[in-house]
Amino acid sequence: MADAISFSRGAPSVDIVDIEGLRAAADRAFTNDPAGTTAYGTAVGYVPLRKLLAEKHGVAPEHVVVTNGSMQADAFLFDELVTPGASVVVEKPSYDRTLLGLAERGADLTAIELEADGISTSALRAALEGGLRPTFAHIIPNYQNPGGSTLPLEKRQELIELAEEYDFLIFEDDPYREIRFRGDELPTMYELAPQRVVYASSFSKTVCPGVRVGYLVGAPDLIAKIVRRATNTYIAPDMLAQSVVYELAQDKPRYDAAIANVKAKLRERCDLLADSLEQHLPEAKFVRPDGGYFLWAELPESYDVEAAAGKMADFDVAFVKGSDFLLEGGKSSLRLAYSAVRADQVDEGVQRLAACLNAHKS
Amino acid sequence: MADAISFSRGAPSVDIVDIEGLRAAADRAFTNDPAGTTAYGTAVGYVPLRKLLAEKHGVAPEHVVVTNGSMQADAFLFDELVTPGASVVVEKPSYDRTLLGLAERGADLTAIELEADGISTSALRAALEGGLRPTFAHIIPNYQNPGGSTLPLEKRQELIELAEEYDFLIFEDDPYREIRFRGDELPTMYELAPQRVVYASSFSKTVCPGVRVGYLVGAPDLIAKIVRRATNTYIAPDMLAQSVVYELAQDKPRYDAAIANVKAKLRERCDLLADSLEQHLPEAKFVRPDGGYFLWAELPESYDVEAAAGKMADFDVAFVKGSDFLLEGGKSSLRLAYSAVRADQVDEGVQRLAACLNAHKS
Repeated sequence: MADAISFSRGAPSVDIVDIEGLRAAADRAFTNDPAGTTAYGTAVGYVPLRKLLAEKHGVAPEHVVVTNGSMQADAFLFDELVTPGASVVVEKPSYDRTLLGLAERGADLTAIELEADGISTSALRAALEGGLRPTFAHIIPNYQNPGGSTLPLEKRQELIELAEEYDFLIFEDDPYREIRFRGDELPTMYELAPQRVVYASSFSKTVCPGVRVGYLVGAPDLIAKIVRRATNTYIAPDMLAQSVVYELAQDKPRYDAAIANVKAKLRERCDLLADSLEQHLPEAKFVRPDGGYFLWAELPESYDVEAAAGKMADFDVAFVKGSDFLLEGGKSSLRLAYSAVRADQVDEGVQRLAACLNAHKS
Repeated sequence: MADAISFSRGAPSVDIVDIEGLRAAADRAFTNDPAGTTAYGTAVGYVPLRKLLAEKHGVAPEHVVVTNGSMQADAFLFDELVTPGASVVVEKPSYDRTLLGLAERGADLTAIELEADGISTSALRAALEGGLRPTFAHIIPNYQNPGGSTLPLEKRQELIELAEEYDFLIFEDDPYREIRFRGDELPTMYELAPQRVVYASSFSKTVCPGVRVGYLVGAPDLIAKIVRRATNTYIAPDMLAQSVVYELAQDKPRYDAAIANVKAKLRERCDLLADSLEQHLPEAKFVRPDGGYFLWAELPESYDVEAAAGKMADFDVAFVKGSDFLLEGGKSSLRLAYSAVRADQVDEGVQRLAACLNAHKS
């Protein structure tokens, strides 16, 4: 029996993690700052990393809190902002764990259609003109999860205008930004309008997810509230992880080379996946991502992706059914993560995927 | 100006952290399990460490969840068990962050007097006979924080009998257990009555607090609920930290020697502190702890410890005022952590402390 080929989890395969770089960084962490690496620290995060991130985003350290992964940061942010019944705009489709986290806190979710170039700002404008008054809009601007689309500059600006006009916050959720394969880097919405945006990112997609380091950038009063929640929850995040990430980033040539390697490998996997889909599953429609980890495929309604997902183990393949990323619908769509499938396995994986899906076509 | 001598934080000083052991363990983690150390993992924790902890406590792995420090585990547990108005028994005094975490969730707290040998089981029995029906009782059985007292076997057994008779859970919060200076190790209440107890511990006090690894042991259905909360909060805890702790524990001679060193140093600091207090602050009453990090001192009512705490910086000394550990009262008591004060500084620290306190005596 062949091993399963998994397009399900948005995580890098171990062959593209810079294990030797991490080993050396851990060694330096214990040499350069033994006390800071092993003592409690405080809930703001490892101070040198917080400072580095503040510099990267062009703000003072008071704008930044570093957490055990960015999902933990999201959880604190939602605890702070989402009271039961609070109106929140999400993308349609969007990251399943974000939808769950918002729903669990009683948010009143409005899902706005994702287009090939990100959220439909015209649909959002229409909803706002129709009376929608969100607390915030959750936006994944780069190579969206699961949609794969990227928001162009004009739409970023339009979103900010809408946020200004209708007085809401943009939660810019941006873990994939540095994994761009094609096209020019775009400014973050946080850069364009810091007063209207709280920004989240992570090292899970660039360094590795097992070293759980994420962060928020936002207004100092909001960040101070998050820090208070973090103190009461865990005193301080893991200092070893943050000290290792800091040391990694200090060796800039190696760090840049490691990210360049991740990008090259993911680009190769992404293009192979897109090519194989065109060959083996020609009815699938998808946006070829400019970066990131995910490709979103939509099939004709004759495909029952939910039923196929229930039988994927029989075909030694794995994916995530589209309905997980939507409040309703999505029964003929699916998310394919190409991040963990080595190049030599992609075509075989797509053939298994096609067999699985075609077996559930009416 | 002299540097402040701080008896405030319950953390080891860096000179008793085995930095070289940690460095070697990190190196082994990247060699022995590069994928497990850097990939997401799941919310149960790093699987080999979970298994090791299960073996240590004589249970199957399903009874254990490993988290980013034990306070994070407490937070999940309180989210699971404490609905607003739920009755919870706490010790008087008790760890300030526990009291805060319970109060924030709307618990109805009943504080039961701590005696020189731990919680007053007769006072608890009287409260239960008077109609108290707690969801659980939070107990720190070994070298209590802040009280320094240890619960003898008979009282552990009596607590379990009360829990059986009045149908409540015991939350056995036991981070200091391995730091025993004197006397015999006692069985945990979890060992004595696993069906009545959920047990928490940590590596913060034995390895170091910056590597944030704590855990819960309990009934599989309760642990499964905690794992679900953990998944929804952060997907998985930091794998690097847990893999490093696992590797540390695998080198048993070195690990045991590191803990023996921590114990020897803390015992020395504890005894010096007690001796210095008897000399320089003879009115202070305290229990000489059998282990752990903390000594609790009670002064005559003529001392205004709250006022003294407000001026401690002027005396280049730091401590935590007793009222932080109590729902009410404690104005003439204080907690002294001897964990971070090197032996050659203890006497000088106590002299400063005495000067500070005596300046606030009526």
